[in-house]
Amino acid sequence: MQNPVRRGIIKVMKRLLVAVIGGHECDSETGRLAEEIGRVIAEEGAVLVCGGLGGIMEAACKGAKEKGGLTIGIIPGNDKKEANEFVDIAIATGLGHSRNAIVAGCADIVIALPGEYGTLSEIGHALNSKIYVYGFGTWEIAGIRKLERPDQLRKIIKR
Amino acid sequence: MQNPVRRGIIKVMKRLLVAVIGGHECDSETGRLAEEIGRVIAEEGAVLVCGGLGGIMEAACKGAKEKGGLTIGIIPGNDKKEANEFVDIAIATGLGHSRNAIVAGCADIVIALPGEYGTLSEIGHALNSKIYVYGFGTWEIAGIRKLERPDQLRKIIKR
Amino acid sequence: MQNPVRRGIIKVMKRLLVAVIGGHECDSETGRLAEEIGRVIAEEGAVLVCGGLGGIMEAACKGAKEKGGLTIGIIPGNDKKEANEFVDIAIATGLGHSRNAIVAGCADIVIALPGEYGTLSEIGHALNSKIYVYGFGTWEIAGIRKLERPDQLRKIIKR
Amino acid sequence: MQNPVRRGIIKVMKRLLVAVIGGHECDSETGRLAEEIGRVIAEEGAVLVCGGLGGIMEAACKGAKEKGGLTIGIIPGNDKKEANEFVDIAIATGLGHSRNAIVAGCADIVIALPGEYGTLSEIGHALNSKIYVYGFGTWEIAGIRKLERPDQLRKIIKR
Repeated sequence: MQNPVRRGIIKVMKRLLVAVIGGHECDSETGRLAEEIGRVIAEEGAVLVCGGLGGIMEAACKGAKEKGGLTIGIIPGNDKKEANEFVDIAIATGLGHSRNAIVAGCADIVIALPGEYGTLSEIGHALNSKIYVYGFGTWEIAGIRKLERPDQLRKIIKR
Repeated sequence: MQNPVRRGIIKVMKRLLVAVIGGHECDSETGRLAEEIGRVIAEEGAVLVCGGLGGIMEAACKGAKEKGGLTIGIIPGNDKKEANEFVDIAIATGLGHSRNAIVAGCADIVIALPGEYGTLSEIGHALNSKIYVYGFGTWEIAGIRKLERPDQLRKIIKR
Repeated sequence: MQNPVRRGIIKVMKRLLVAVIGGHECDSETGRLAEEIGRVIAEEGAVLVCGGLGGIMEAACKGAKEKGGLTIGIIPGNDKKEANEFVDIAIATGLGHSRNAIVAGCADIVIALPGEYGTLSEIGHALNSKIYVYGFGTWEIAGIRKLERPDQLRKIIKR
Repeated sequence: MQNPVRRGIIKVMKRLLVAVIGGHECDSETGRLAEEIGRVIAEEGAVLVCGGLGGIMEAACKGAKEKGGLTIGIIPGNDKKEANEFVDIAIATGLGHSRNAIVAGCADIVIALPGEYGTLSEIGHALNSKIYVYGFGTWEIAGIRKLERPDQLRKIIKR
């Protein structure tokens, strides 16, 4: 008799981690863009990672959840209630702004939307770690690959 | 016609995070205990969080995956390949030993198994953050609630 | 004419870093012990590192400053005003409890006094990093070298 | 007889912390600029903080030490030998790139020289923390106050 729990039949989820970064406040147009990006990430089977708070982060999580995706919020404080309501798994780091380095650094690819200096620090960390950063109307930084429509991400995530 | 993706019907996973901490090497008996704990965590619908490496961490992840659970590894380095093969989602922190504070601090409850000084630091962080620590033959530290059988965890996770 | 600033005549301070860890509150007897330890550290020419807050940390810094020593506080928040008044250089980390790993890990030797779970986490981090920990009435952890009088530290710092 | 060590006569060093950020490699002209900036920082009585490695960081530390200043290196690894030879006090964080948030965040003011993406992340962190950033030929980021000559820093540090 074989061991029924042998490794061969355990299915481990090795899915792409896609970080979405951007401001904790955003206008409604940017919010709709973030939601659409979230939907694409979920539809392509990737896991959405973000800083877990409001604005862009919340909109992207909402989009991903609409399509049944999995959302992870790497939050700055110690209390997981800080996470927006569309975060499945809140990792409460207690690291403050330093958690930005983890949001950017743990991802396979990073999608940058408009944001303030926190977003800029995340772009810096991602590029410093040689992680591809795809930008939608974000900071003008050499090294960012500019995109215009969320569905351009489908091919990128598939690769 | 209403928007079919309105918030009311989005199902967000708000599951308990249970951290399992312990040595990155372990004997076969402790490994079996860790596997059984992983199975209980998954069966009770909680998410397993750990440091993502070998030994106790790997055994617990293996147990959780046998029962279809979700496993998260908060790893010390920058390369997610460092994670054991039963980790679904590897969060590569690049923080080295400081990631111990996150493993312990992000959990709703912590299960401590035998381990070395890294495990001790995690116990300290968890208790310092007023997170309940349940121990199976681990460090003798006031404040740890001792357990003897994995199935004692079922009631605790359910609460 | 030679460059007057060539490296040969620049004097760089390569002094031992001695961390003092313990509770952010303490009774007067323990406070006097911490002050005396601070004085010894300064008299022996070492730099005192600590978590920068009150209690043991403040008493040790006070002792070191009485003897003209240099004191560094690795503080959890972002505002250096959080540091006690005897800290020369406050390093505001914003890392919360995770800063404990730095306090313990950056030191050449660690002196542990009575403290709560934060102190325990620092002991764990130090021993995990193979840094010698000398204890005065602190947690009972295998690996701590127990001392009874501050002047026993003189020889240790000199080595 | 009064206690000769009462607080009134203890002199605590509350000096400005000035962070110098920039690439870990640099050409000789930029190196001379960094050295001169280091000299100005030391002459004005401020403490120089940096990431502790080579290039800009080393040149700035060298300049500061030529003038008898104090230099602190917040290094990414666990081994203080990683620090350049002009660092007085190496704080080994073990945090990897995340230490950038501390270099930028612990300073009273930040001086940015040419650098790569790590420097960009530090600029983002500093501006995000509302710390003034003065730039010498560095990234073009709104919010940086551009300077041309190191002696312009004298007034800024004095304020």
